[in-house]
Amino acid sequence: MTRFGVLDETLVQLAETAALEAMDDSHTRGERFDFLFVGAQNPDEFTGRSHVSTLLADHLGLVPTGAIRVESGPSSGASAFESGFAFVASGMADLVLVIGVEKMTGVDRSTAVRVVNRMLSQESESRYGATPAALAALMARRYMHDFGLTRDELSQIPVNAHRNGAKNPLAHFQKEITVEDVSNSRIVADPLRLYDCCPTSDGAAAVILASDKRIKELCKKDQSIKVLGIGHATDYLAMQHRQSLTSMNATKIAAERAFKMAGVQSADVDVFELHDAFSILQLVEMEDLGIAEPGKGIKIVLDGCTDIRGETPVNPTGGLKARGHPTGATGVAQIRDIVVQLREIAPKELQVPCPTIGLSHNIGGFGNNIVVSIFSNH
Amino acid sequence: MTRFGVLDETLVQLAETAALEAMDDSHTRGERFDFLFVGAQNPDEFTGRSHVSTLLADHLGLVPTGAIRVESGPSSGASAFESGFAFVASGMADLVLVIGVEKMTGVDRSTAVRVVNRMLSQESESRYGATPAALAALMARRYMHDFGLTRDELSQIPVNAHRNGAKNPLAHFQKEITVEDVSNSRIVADPLRLYDCCPTSDGAAAVILASDKRIKELCKKDQSIKVLGIGHATDYLAMQHRQSLTSMNATKIAAERAFKMAGVQSADVDVFELHDAFSILQLVEMEDLGIAEPGKGIKIVLDGCTDIRGETPVNPTGGLKARGHPTGATGVAQIRDIVVQLREIAPKELQVPCPTIGLSHNIGGFGNNIVVSIFSNH
Repeated sequence: MTRFGVLDETLVQLAETAALEAMDDSHTRGERFDFLFVGAQNPDEFTGRSHVSTLLADHLGLVPTGAIRVESGPSSGASAFESGFAFVASGMADLVLVIGVEKMTGVDRSTAVRVVNRMLSQESESRYGATPAALAALMARRYMHDFGLTRDELSQIPVNAHRNGAKNPLAHFQKEITVEDVSNSRIVADPLRLYDCCPTSDGAAAVILASDKRIKELCKKDQSIKVLGIGHATDYLAMQHRQSLTSMNATKIAAERAFKMAGVQSADVDVFELHDAFSILQLVEMEDLGIAEPGKGIKIVLDGCTDIRGETPVNPTGGLKARGHPTGATGVAQIRDIVVQLREIAPKELQVPCPTIGLSHNIGGFGNNIVVSIFSNH
Repeated sequence: MTRFGVLDETLVQLAETAALEAMDDSHTRGERFDFLFVGAQNPDEFTGRSHVSTLLADHLGLVPTGAIRVESGPSSGASAFESGFAFVASGMADLVLVIGVEKMTGVDRSTAVRVVNRMLSQESESRYGATPAALAALMARRYMHDFGLTRDELSQIPVNAHRNGAKNPLAHFQKEITVEDVSNSRIVADPLRLYDCCPTSDGAAAVILASDKRIKELCKKDQSIKVLGIGHATDYLAMQHRQSLTSMNATKIAAERAFKMAGVQSADVDVFELHDAFSILQLVEMEDLGIAEPGKGIKIVLDGCTDIRGETPVNPTGGLKARGHPTGATGVAQIRDIVVQLREIAPKELQVPCPTIGLSHNIGGFGNNIVVSIFSNH
């Protein structure tokens, strides 16, 4: 993956950098790829670039590969990976390149906000001025009311994210922050402040999927990480139509499907990459994924369980908050970071000790299009 | 599928109409769908609607189905179908809804043109003012030079398309035209005239994919059509980088892959739906698919072989020229029309006599992202 951040590179340059690194790592440069999947949310609006599947197949020298762009909002990356997996599992492909990419900072801030807001319900949300941050604020307020979470407790989430991000050379934000920094940052949507919200980033990540046969031919058995299970679920587009403000049904169902396919359960997972676009989301997700009881997520965060060397490490690479959130790239970056953890090749300070199973959780829309993917190194 | 044309309905209404018709036809309304795939090229720019996969899953009552939008330019529909097929073939899904939809006429003409042109190579084509019609004109001019095709001969292609479209109650254009009408229509890009070019349309089409197991449970064995093979290939984004102006390598490779998977050859196909966005494309495609020798396509058109009751019927429903071309919908409409032919439930005048194998051919970009799908009724 590229570094995430406000970058000079174009969408094509970012995607190429990530893709070529993935090929070099797996010694597949020059191999025939059967398919290219590109996860990107709004390349047209953010960059004026259209038809990115052919564009990237051409730039990467992959013609005449099949090429498809996949979009499911900010879970486009995980959906692209899932699609690549299905093509390999079906026998329609043996070697697939998956790229997640988004170049968001090339347009002015108001355009970026307008484009991202369009994924909300027009009828029930955006027409009343709601933004993703506003919906996250509703969630946080209700969670505080129901479970007694305090503002200072919540601040520990971004503090932890930045602590990990500070050690991650690819993270958008590489500096530590304090609880006071969070409390003193400006309000975005009460009770959420600036440091509760992930940034708008540029970046790309890539992974390569191969069939058992192809892995054997490429002699990459020792380097390869197994996809154990993938689950995908939607919820109602508008938050007001859902069962709960403090739990995401789509996470629960996607996780149930992924765990069933993988034949493992939450307690078996050694490292998690969660979609913490807003601080409150990490707590809700930890609870929906069975890492903590409802309302108890903050306790294990404060106890250090979610730290890199804790019992259930969450977002060792900084998560969306610190690693950054180029929307279409995020899901693939999460998977790349889980793969790096399971191969035990993460930067030393970020490496979770001896993980065998990892899980990534990627949200599209505001909580309505969710993909959970589970991986194993054995 | 809905009627194609300049329609009052919104994108959501069009997609819903097609999807509900597909469900009713297969008695799957109320069944649990594992996945929804939406093929749509530029819903954001054409309609202001984003995140259409969740949006439609919600509107159709399919939550918590997995939902993904698929985009590969104007072949988005076929790519969505192909993705649904891969998910079923992989065992990740047993029942899948595929919707192709585009609402193009809600924006002014110049916006529509600007959006569609973005799929061309910015570096080598659109920056010099090239449009898809201009590229098709280059192709036509070269084809005329190489093979002696005359303007009046070429005019027979749209004449035939309109003759079929006139009998198709769902076609955008339902009136016959003459060779003189084509010759008298205004020049769009010399030598191509208005009637050589498909229209900008609104519309949607839907198909349902099911595993053998699910088809048995639904007792739909007699109604179901088998997917024999799918092939997908890209070519260089810019036409100037390709091998030929009068042949599309991506068609040849996609067809080779599809025929290989299907275990049949071109001569076995009883009905074709080809991507005739411009009249010249039909000839080039017929030749690349092995229906005619290079340069000889026009002969079998003039001989009546491609008529509905000819030896190799092409576009019995009017093709993109007369049925219309709501870009993301086209690929699914082609497949729907092949299915209707193979089930022998087309309107009597459009029905090809006793077909057993059908093929659809959908182009993304200008000839650089092509999907060929082959179907059988036995």
